Parts: sequence; structure tokens; C-alpha cells
Amino acid sequence: MSDGKNKKAAAAAEDKKTIGLTVKKSEDFSEWYTQVIAKAELADYTKVSGCLVLRPYAYAIWEKIVKEVDARLKKMRVQNCYFPLLIPESLLKKEEQHIQGFAPEVAWVTHASDTKLDERLAVRPTSETIMYDSVSKWVRSWRDLPLKLNQWNNVVRWEFKHPTPFIRTREFLWNEGHTAFATKEEAEAEIGEILSLWKDITENFLAVAGITGQKSQSEKFAGAVASYSIEFFLPNGRAAQGPDAHFDGQNFAKAFDITFLNEKGEKDYVWQNTWAITTRMIGILAMVHGDDKGLVIPPNIAPVQIVIVPILFEDSKKEVLAAANKIRKELEKESIAAEVDGRETYTAGWKFNEWELKGVPVRIEIGPRDMQQKQAIIVRRDTSAKETVKLEAVAAAARKTLAEIQESLYQKSKQQLENSIVAAKNIGEIATAVKSKKLAKADFCGSAKCEAEVKEKADGATSRCMTLLEPKSTEADWAQSSQRLGKGSIQKREQMGKCVVCGKEGVASWFGKAY
Amino acid sequence: MSDGKNKKAAAAAEDKKTIGLTVKKSEDFSEWYTQVIAKAELADYTKVSGCLVLRPYAYAIWEKIVKEVDARLKKMRVQNCYFPLLIPESLLKKEEQHIQGFAPEVAWVTHASDTKLDERLAVRPTSETIMYDSVSKWVRSWRDLPLKLNQWNNVVRWEFKHPTPFIRTREFLWNEGHTAFATKEEAEAEIGEILSLWKDITENFLAVAGITGQKSQSEKFAGAVASYSIEFFLPNGRAAQGPDAHFDGQNFAKAFDITFLNEKGEKDYVWQNTWAITTRMIGILAMVHGDDKGLVIPPNIAPVQIVIVPILFEDSKKEVLAAANKIRKELEKESIAAEVDGRETYTAGWKFNEWELKGVPVRIEIGPRDMQQKQAIIVRRDTSAKETVKLEAVAAAARKTLAEIQESLYQKSKQQLENSIVAAKNIGEIATAVKSKKLAKADFCGSAKCEAEVKEKADGATSRCMTLLEPKSTEADWAQSSQRLGKGSIQKREQMGKCVVCGKEGVASWFGKAY
Repeated sequence: MSDGKNKKAAAAAEDKKTIGLTVKKSEDFSEWYTQVIAKAELADYTKVSGCLVLRPYAYAIWEKIVKEVDARLKKMRVQNCYFPLLIPESLLKKEEQHIQGFAPEVAWVTHASDTKLDERLAVRPTSETIMYDSVSKWVRSWRDLPLKLNQWNNVVRWEFKHPTPFIRTREFLWNEGHTAFATKEEAEAEIGEILSLWKDITENFLAVAGITGQKSQSEKFAGAVASYSIEFFLPNGRAAQGPDAHFDGQNFAKAFDITFLNEKGEKDYVWQNTWAITTRMIGILAMVHGDDKGLVIPPNIAPVQIVIVPILFEDSKKEVLAAANKIRKELEKESIAAEVDGRETYTAGWKFNEWELKGVPVRIEIGPRDMQQKQAIIVRRDTSAKETVKLEAVAAAARKTLAEIQESLYQKSKQQLENSIVAAKNIGEIATAVKSKKLAKADFCGSAKCEAEVKEKADGATSRCMTLLEPKSTEADWAQSSQRLGKGSIQKREQMGKCVVCGKEGVASWFGKAY
Repeated sequence: MSDGKNKKAAAAAEDKKTIGLTVKKSEDFSEWYTQVIAKAELADYTKVSGCLVLRPYAYAIWEKIVKEVDARLKKMRVQNCYFPLLIPESLLKKEEQHIQGFAPEVAWVTHASDTKLDERLAVRPTSETIMYDSVSKWVRSWRDLPLKLNQWNNVVRWEFKHPTPFIRTREFLWNEGHTAFATKEEAEAEIGEILSLWKDITENFLAVAGITGQKSQSEKFAGAVASYSIEFFLPNGRAAQGPDAHFDGQNFAKAFDITFLNEKGEKDYVWQNTWAITTRMIGILAMVHGDDKGLVIPPNIAPVQIVIVPILFEDSKKEVLAAANKIRKELEKESIAAEVDGRETYTAGWKFNEWELKGVPVRIEIGPRDMQQKQAIIVRRDTSAKETVKLEAVAAAARKTLAEIQESLYQKSKQQLENSIVAAKNIGEIATAVKSKKLAKADFCGSAKCEAEVKEKADGATSRCMTLLEPKSTEADWAQSSQRLGKGSIQKREQMGKCVVCGKEGVASWFGKAY
């Protein structure tokens, strides 16, 4: 990564060198993304391939995601905790499908100092096994349920595919929610609650539009009965799985002997879910909203929402700086995260470029002439639109502009997603759509057999997700979830179509190339 | 750990079984601590020796510590970030003293799935080496300084000593602050700022009194020029190092080539500090404040500050529960974290025991008779003192009681520390003090040679810390730190004594057995 070079460029700013991007997003997406990540100082490579530094700017975005999610989890009475990083091999192997899914990616600790360990330890790729070993001790009676645990931590998955910053890295940060219930209905109801939480965070904070759905048999989580996720479609024609939720049924409960005495005094296995959101969202955010000038961060998640750049001349410096700080204080009173960039070693133009690169949603400019006229200029990062506003109205105008940017970024993302979807009536049409970097929408039964056929004949496309199906009467009450998830997000059983592969009952599903 | 048993006991509460501690703190401290940790549900063992689960209650205390520390760091313009967990061996070896200090404790990743890695990777025991490799790329000019980075993460140190929950574990949570400055003076001034932050957190939140001082040559951090810490003395006669701060000088800067061009255009090495607070503080907190009924959590750090236990009878249940919830709402208006324990499956007496075990600072009882008299009973966890208060005055009285408990716990801890210190004029007196489980105070030069002599002749005692010495005029301006750290915390040079070992100049120092 050309970060060192970038810093040198910064130091040489007076020489009129530019720190901006040298490629267009539409022309070379991959190089564009590499430059954005480096030059906006989101991440940096290290000597370990696939293991990235989250630089302060990216980490600040992550902190905002964590803060919003965590507050909502606490309201759901989910309790945070911390389980050990290292998992004995024998534990990891306890659930058969689970170990099959993760074994190819496990980083193994074999030695402590010069001593070979009796049993090798996995650096956690996920914590089901070590957590459920404890949960089986803790849960005895129906009164111990529901047990809703969550941890914010780091996991390592030593994938050998080409790493992409944030999107696919060998270590990433996430939360892992692990909940246990006395009944299937309660567990399934929580899946709806979690999916609507993910929808809230991704739409209303990250301003990215995705498709909420269920995973097919081939794409579900290793060890789960059913997996759900929000899927995103990226400008390079690749799909990326966002936050997810897995209904594990009693699979792990049986493997780890997590039983309880129910109110009737009978022994029963608990019903479990797991769910997560990861630092991958930072990559999705950057890819979806970024433009040829750099990042565009949605206001609701931006570490710096407004940057105030005073136009400094020797004779009016002090007054202009004071005016800029006064604006900052007024913005802070409105709970807007604002900064004044008063550095004298950089020109105003250089600062404009740098903050645009970093995607700060709004810039306020104020110079000596503006002061005379008791005004400032508000500039939108997403549209470059400028507005001259009287000083007493700056805070209100800024707040309004931030809200407009937030909404407009989401609508743009939604439009892009809709424009990327092509209806397909057979595998041939799926192949055509995927080859032209679109997402194919087709009815699909969800079976591994049909999916394999699509993959083979449609250029490696896989099902990204399937429309949520209205539950059977014996299943959870999804009415509330349906309401939360929005009208039309759950398909009625009587409206099912026919799988374009086998002709059996199927639901509208999306096919594409996954990152 | 008898946690499973504990849960069974809880389920059998109606059988009048007790969930309380079965030993006294003064009679069998070690067993007492083991029971407190398990029965108050702070932690649980796992299949990996020395790697503990932080259960939700302990994690909630840690979250409160993190919140307070992090807010103060952000005010100091410290930026959070995240560096990879795994460090290549070649990087870890770059600073000679550093690797010597950590090599005996490193857990090594040697394989990914079935593939042997080209170079083994250390699970970070601390992150200097991987961070400074990046910092050397990022810092180019004086304008990039100071660079103040911090990360909240997990570290693994595979110690072979007997593990003690929170106090010594093979994995723990902490922050690691890593800062780089253009001048020695700025770096040294930050040490004072950090020490006063640690003092604020430990005294005003955790309510534990410690000794702020400098580490001797033998006890300083591997790679540092000078190490500072707050040391605590525990009821079993052992000392434990609390949060610390290390002045690294230019040691790592030279090993990692972290240079910058100063304002004159000359190349120079940066000056660096590192500092940390860890989950060990939860153990210190439990050991210092706990009593024969269980934990006692200081109000300012308690996840639940007040528990309201309604006394429920069939005919007045609804009204009493409503009154309890009304009190909770009034407390929450005052920003007091309160919970109503309305469970009908446990008796009031059982609940009293459980919340006392968990160390919730204040209990409020309200029953039908109290309701008639428009009153409630406030019970202090630390003294068991009861006070009957009119309902309209409950919130104010509760707030006052919480403040009194906070102050009283700190004063008690301070008194205990003072009572544990015995002045010693020679090694013999140090030995006598340490053998009687006291902390010996003696003048000491800080050299490795004198320390080795003390260790040999005084039953393994080591210097825990040395009084901070007034800086020489060429060093940092410690006047502000001195003010922050409190009167008398920095010794004047002209008042130095003579080392009880070698007779050379020395400062008042504390000797004891370390955990």
C-alpha cells in the first residue's frame, strides 16, 4: 500500500502535489478501492498477508456501529461477556458439520514458548464450541432461560482466497450473539428481531440497501438449521453477505448436552440462535458510497460529520478562526460531531481535498469576506452542492443538510440495487445476467442439487439469498417480524413459484457471484 | 469451579438451601476468592488452563472501566485503532530486551489448517512490534506528531505460574496505549497525565488505594527506559501491579527506525510511551472490597447500583410490584442503575443473599406494610446498615447513600494499605515485614544488584515500586503531574535517603511478595 508515499505527498503539499485518487471508480474498481482504503487512511497492510491494521478512521466508524448495535442489544436484555480466544481441538470437533465448515480455515497454536502443547488450540474462527461447553454447565432449569449472550471480539479464519481489505481478511472484528431458549417459537421470533436490527443499522446508519433473506441449503452456516442474512451488491458485480442470523435448532444443544428441566419437570434440549455483524460492513460502505474523490461516509455513522475550514489570511486569521470555533460549538450543541481544521501548514484547497477523500459529509467554509457578510458556505460531499447560509442559521441548515445526505445516499443505494436485479426464467438467463455483472432473480427451491446445477451452468453463480417465506402455523409468530422487516419482505406460501431448475415449489431468490 | 453445583443450589432455593460462601475471607483467603468468583458469577474456568470466561457480571464491570478510561483518552486526543492479533516472529525479535522479556510466554501459531506456515506467528503478548512497524511508515514529519494510538484488545501470555482468576490468566483484556512524540519532554509529561488518569479510575471508581511509583531496574517493562505503575496490596499479603505507564525513550524508535523530519528539517527519532489497564483490576477489586457475604462493588463501577426487592404476598403483589417499579423509575431519572427483582420463584431472603453475594451496593426493600406507611427500607451492602425512608425521599437518600459507600470503601482501602506498611531500616527488617505479610518501606537505590540481594535475603521479596522522584531540570515539567498526582507523591531530590543495601542515594520504596 502506498501509504508511506501518501504521507510524503502530504508533507509536500505546499508543492501543490495532490493527495487525491489517480483512477476512476468506474474504470478500475479494484485499484480505486485500494487507493481509497490507503489514502483515506482506513486501513494498512502488515507483514502478515490478509491481516490488516484498522487505522483510527476505520476504527472510529466501527465504534459507531458497535455503539448503535450494542445499545439495541442491551434493550433486548442481551448480556455481553468474553470467552477465551483459544479453543481445544477436541471441543471444536464436537459438532460434526461445524468442524467440517471451519477446519480448512483454522490457525493452530501448537507451542507455548518452546513447549509443545498436549493438544493443539484453535484461534477461534467463531465461538459456538467453547461457549456451549460453558452454557451446558450454566443452564439447569427453565428459569435460567432465555440465556442471551454476546461478545465483541476478534476472530481468525485463515482463508487462502485472495484477501480484500474489510471484505475478506484473515482476522476481523465482529460481535457474536449466542442465545438459548426453552422453545423453538422464542428462538425463531428472535431471528426476526435480529434481522430487523440489522436492517435498521444497515439502512438507517450505513445507508446501504440490501436484500434480507434466507440462505439456501448449500450456503447456510456450518451447523445451523437455517441461516438468514442481508446481502449487498457491489459496484464490481460481486455480492457480499452482510450481517446474519442463524437458527441452530437443537443441533449444538445435542452435541454439547445443553439440557434444562422445563416447567413440567421434564428434561429438554434448548433451542439456539447465533448472529453477527462484522467489520466487513466498512468495506461495503466504502464500495457503495465512494466516488472519484474518495470516501463518502453517511452522516449517521460518520466519526466527523462536519469539517469547518476557515480561510486563513495573515491579517484576519484570529477572527476567522474564532468564528469557525464558534460555529463548531453551535454544531456540538446540536450533537453534531464537528471539527475545525485550523492547520496553517496546509492550504485551504489541500484541506478540501483531504476531507473529501475522507468522505466527511459536510464542509463549512468561512473566510474574511463571509464574516463581513455574516455568512458561511455549506458544501455537500455527495453532490458538491454549495449553499450560502447566514451565521445564525448555520446549525439548523447543517442539521437539515446532514439529514438530506443520509436519506439521499440510501435512496441512491436502493436505486443501484434495484437497477442491478434482472429477472431470470431459467439457468441460461441467470448465466447471462451474472456474466453482465448483474444479480439474477429467479424462483428457486433452495436445494443443494439445484444450486450445484446453477453454479455449474451459470459461470459459478450461487444463490445469495431467498425471499423469507411465511412461517407455517407450527412455527414462530413472524407477524411482528414481518411488520418490522417491512411490507412484502415475507412471501406468502400460496404465492410460491416454481424452481427454475427442478420445477418444484420455490421462492424468489437472488443469484450472483460472491466476493 | 462449582458453578454447576451453584445453579443446582439456586434451583433448589425453595428447599431453604443457601447459595452463600462457606468459608470466611480471613480464614481461607484462597478458597474464599475461588468461591466469590464462582458464586457471584464473575468468571468460570474452561478446558484451557488459565483461560477464563468473563461472565456477564464481570464483563459489565469491565465495560464500565473501559467507558470511563476511554472517555478520558478521547479528551486527550488519543485515537483508538486495531492491529492484527498475530505477529511474525521476525518482527517480535526486533527489539532485543523486548523479546527476551516475552519469549518465555509466547503462544505460537505454526499451522493454518494442515499447512505449516513459512514463519511462525506469535499470538500478541503486547503489540509494540507490530504497531511500530506501521508507525515507522506513517510518521514522516513533525506535523504527524504527536501520534497517540490506543487499542482495546485481548493478549495471550502463556505463563506457567499457577493461574489466579483475573490476577494471573493466560489471556486477558486490556488497553494498550502507544504514543510517539517529537520531544522527550512531551513524552515524559504524558506519563504524568496517564498516571493521574489511572489514579482517578482506581481511586474514584474502583475505590482501591494504591501506591503510585516508579519500577526498579529489575522490575521495569522489557524494552522501556523507565516504568511506572500503581501497586496494590492484597489481603493475603501479596502485592499486585495495577495499571502502568512506560517511558520507552528512543529504544523502539531505533529498533524500528521511526524517524521524522523536525521543524528545522533534521532527521530525528521519536520518543515513545506505552500504558495499559487490564482486567486484573476486577480481581483486585474483588479481593480488596469483598467480605464473608461475597463481593462488594463500589457504586461508581457497579453494573447494578441498587436492587429493589419487593416483598411479595399473594393479596398485595400487584401494588407492591408497582411501587417497586415506581422507585426504579425515580432512581433511573437520577441516572442510578437500578433493577427490580420481582421473581416469584425465589423468596425475598434468598434474593437478599444472592444480591449480597453479587455485591450490589444498595438494596431497597418494600413490602405491603411499608406501602401503608409510604416508606421503603434502604440497606447498605458494605455495613448492613438499614434506614427507613419516606417514599418521596427515596431517590435523594439512595443517591446520598451511594456516595457515602463509595467514599467509605475508598477510605477503608486506604486505611488497610497504610496499616500494611512497615518501615524497614535494613534487609533483615524487610524480611521480617514480608514474612508477616506486610509491605516493607525502605530507602532503595533501584539497582538490579541491590534488588537481587534483597530478594535472596528477604524471602523472595521484590521492590514493588519506588517513590516518584522530582525531575531534573532537563527532564519533563512534572509540576503539573505532581499537582495531579497529589501532594507529597513526588519526592524532592534534596530529601533523598540512603539505600538500605548499598548506602548510595535512594528513595522510599516498597518491598513485598508479588502475585
